Amino acid sequence: MTLPPTQPTALISRGSGESLVEQIVRSITSRIDDKLLRTAARMPSIRQFAEQYKVSRFTVVEAYDRLVANGYLESRRGSGFFVRERAQMMAASRSGQDTDPRPTQQLDVVWLIRNMFRQLPPQKMPGTGLLPNDWLDGELIANGLRAVSRQNQNPLLQYGTPQGFLPLRQQLQLKLAELEIAATPDQIVTTSGVTQALDLVAREFTQPGDTIFVDDPAWFLMFGSFATLGAKVVGIPRLADGPDVAKLAELAALHKPRLYVVNSVLHNPTSTSLSAAKAFQVLRIAAEHDITIVEDDIYCDMHPGPAVQPATRLATLDQLQRVIYLGGFSKTLAANLRVGFIATSHELAQRLSDRKMLTTLTTTEIGERVVYKILSEGHYRKHVDRIRAKLDTMRGKAIRQLERAGLTIDAPTPAGMFVWVDTGCDTNVLTERAMAEGYLLAPGSLFSPNQLPSTRMRVNVATMSDPGLLQFLERESAKLRQ
Amino acid sequence: MTLPPTQPTALISRGSGESLVEQIVRSITSRIDDKLLRTAARMPSIRQFAEQYKVSRFTVVEAYDRLVANGYLESRRGSGFFVRERAQMMAASRSGQDTDPRPTQQLDVVWLIRNMFRQLPPQKMPGTGLLPNDWLDGELIANGLRAVSRQNQNPLLQYGTPQGFLPLRQQLQLKLAELEIAATPDQIVTTSGVTQALDLVAREFTQPGDTIFVDDPAWFLMFGSFATLGAKVVGIPRLADGPDVAKLAELAALHKPRLYVVNSVLHNPTSTSLSAAKAFQVLRIAAEHDITIVEDDIYCDMHPGPAVQPATRLATLDQLQRVIYLGGFSKTLAANLRVGFIATSHELAQRLSDRKMLTTLTTTEIGERVVYKILSEGHYRKHVDRIRAKLDTMRGKAIRQLERAGLTIDAPTPAGMFVWVDTGCDTNVLTERAMAEGYLLAPGSLFSPNQLPSTRMRVNVATMSDPGLLQFLERESAKLRQ
Repeated sequence: MTLPPTQPTALISRGSGESLVEQIVRSITSRIDDKLLRTAARMPSIRQFAEQYKVSRFTVVEAYDRLVANGYLESRRGSGFFVRERAQMMAASRSGQDTDPRPTQQLDVVWLIRNMFRQLPPQKMPGTGLLPNDWLDGELIANGLRAVSRQNQNPLLQYGTPQGFLPLRQQLQLKLAELEIAATPDQIVTTSGVTQALDLVAREFTQPGDTIFVDDPAWFLMFGSFATLGAKVVGIPRLADGPDVAKLAELAALHKPRLYVVNSVLHNPTSTSLSAAKAFQVLRIAAEHDITIVEDDIYCDMHPGPAVQPATRLATLDQLQRVIYLGGFSKTLAANLRVGFIATSHELAQRLSDRKMLTTLTTTEIGERVVYKILSEGHYRKHVDRIRAKLDTMRGKAIRQLERAGLTIDAPTPAGMFVWVDTGCDTNVLTERAMAEGYLLAPGSLFSPNQLPSTRMRVNVATMSDPGLLQFLERESAKLRQ
Repeated sequence: MTLPPTQPTALISRGSGESLVEQIVRSITSRIDDKLLRTAARMPSIRQFAEQYKVSRFTVVEAYDRLVANGYLESRRGSGFFVRERAQMMAASRSGQDTDPRPTQQLDVVWLIRNMFRQLPPQKMPGTGLLPNDWLDGELIANGLRAVSRQNQNPLLQYGTPQGFLPLRQQLQLKLAELEIAATPDQIVTTSGVTQALDLVAREFTQPGDTIFVDDPAWFLMFGSFATLGAKVVGIPRLADGPDVAKLAELAALHKPRLYVVNSVLHNPTSTSLSAAKAFQVLRIAAEHDITIVEDDIYCDMHPGPAVQPATRLATLDQLQRVIYLGGFSKTLAANLRVGFIATSHELAQRLSDRKMLTTLTTTEIGERVVYKILSEGHYRKHVDRIRAKLDTMRGKAIRQLERAGLTIDAPTPAGMFVWVDTGCDTNVLTERAMAEGYLLAPGSLFSPNQLPSTRMRVNVATMSDPGLLQFLERESAKLRQ
């Protein structure tokens, strides 16, 4: 068989920014998502494909292998490539329709996170947690890499230090000082993003069966990460000015959690921030029940300042006594640098640094040197200023468009990358329909520690430039509300 | 107080390859190790130091901070910098002399690994597990970084894929094929070195209380890593042609281990390799007791071929059914790239990729692209050929020197970076004395899963160029043997 009749030019356009491999992968991916290519369909052989589209066989091999790696195709030895059964990957979005038992919590989370790595254009991914490439500054990163390549190469040949590149930790000391958090470089440990920071802290503090508090809603990857440790994850309802503190106190007495992981500033997915009064109460309850707070401040540099939205960091009040502060540069510079960090007491920093050493030895100094350069040369501040300005423009526009499409936003946020939208319908079902049309949504169930179906979804305001998406949302959410 | 009288030129030599900060750190480190600076001594203030040695205050701040980070100095707010109590760090090497209870296993391991990150010249570190910088090719790495900086930058701005950069996995497929191990790219997951690979596999397979087999002796970092998971670590005696299979069968029946981690080729620390007959027996015992084998082949490319030393890989026989194969480039290219990998069944590769995603999201594609370039352009093969040739020259010389110094080598190895030397004395004590003279040894106790004192130590043949070291070993081991 061959691919459904398509002009080669529709599949591949030479001269676009994308490589041929990327274009082939994207085209076949969307054909499978759109059900133009059905499960178990046989793909053209590598030779046929290469001849049909006038590309080299190596290009086809690479594209097919990538599609296998992404779970779209499977290779059967001796008989070629076939479209893979996607039942498992779709399971997460189907719960509103069938009566099968819900897949395990971890599977659903893995499903959405895997989707984050799909090669879709940004305007097709309102559910993404990243800014589009053209909002970031590839040249800044490339310059940083070139500078690293010109430096003394000896440090790169060795392991570096487990605690992380010292000049970067010195820059982070300055960055934290601006937030009125006093931390010397020996209190800071670099990590492979906030993800590794959370893993290290959770492993340090919990045994299987222990409870970890998170916000409800909250960042979904944590649920899967903590589940692999055997921890019990309990959600604290998030209100417009921070967690529901009455509920926090009640659940703390009941569950005796070891940790509470919270986004104080620009909470994911609601973009709300903690008021000073709430921050004080959270710390009081944490002290009473001896809970260690993990303050994930990954959206720190997207915050426009207290004049626009009041925001109090727990570490600013507590000064790293009971609060472990996490930050990173995946959202604002480049996710692939994998640079995050932990700031905590001197003693715990040493323990976490030892634990990091036993887990991954060191993080690579390459990314850390690039970030150091960008911070120390003053580029970072200007860069995030631009991102904030752009977000402000796009956010207002996106909120108006979403409202015109019949969706509601409880408390339109004046800051941040995300809006938490109420569609009035089950967003699991909406997500499945969107996927059939080539859009990736982030349904509310994914942000729920219990993965309860929800009418809400997270929308990234930086991706809202496709009129087709708004038409889709208006039409399908109206149908589903009936 | 000031530093002990020293010519500034002895502390700092401008124009050497090292930065001023590195020189200051190294000088003060060795003064502390040599007890010229005693515990609790107050360091000169930053201003005093800067004036005395004609360097900028920022340089001094950076050096002092690094010394704090390395545990040499402590900063007391308002009163300056002081030489830190080193009791804990020395504890590991003192067990032969005092009657204190032994520190925990994990602490000792952490102690030596921390020492790996000390800034000593290579000829002072016969205990190191890395090749000296000038054996590696910094320019090759720098070229790779420059090439990455000139590529399309978009992939760097995003996360990459959890399973790892596909073209690299395709190159690894070819590399494995040369070892007669068939693995498609979807069976390969990249990791942050073999360290992360071991952590991911151990977390996938074990619950607290489960048993993991290792060689005895074996790579010390594993002991600490597995201990953090609550696993019980049991050693299988290593003989000249592989593990003691009678003991393996006996202990397998007794402990029912989940995993057996083994270096088939160029075992660390003995540089022995597995015979074909032993390999077959190990697999037979593993099948009988349902043990998953983790074959850590990090020294793969230092092996000179079966004509020089017979070597059979378990994965070559088993084809990734029961054997999980690990490899990486930290030893041969650059540790700081942090590129390792796992090859296993398709299904387990997906599970480990998901687990990696929940732990660190992705590994950075920067290092993976650099390694891809070096492999695909054919530089790697020539590079490791040079390293092997150099090792052969140095190994023979080192063995003769060590024997002349009165030490013995049971079975002088014809291959690899390490020789496993018998000093005839307690190498814990020898290590402590060496440290006082500025040398880092790797005592046998560290490679023992039970950390039993040992007369053996691991010597890196690439570091044996300091006549003072050989004099020290001859003199002190003779004294201790009396």
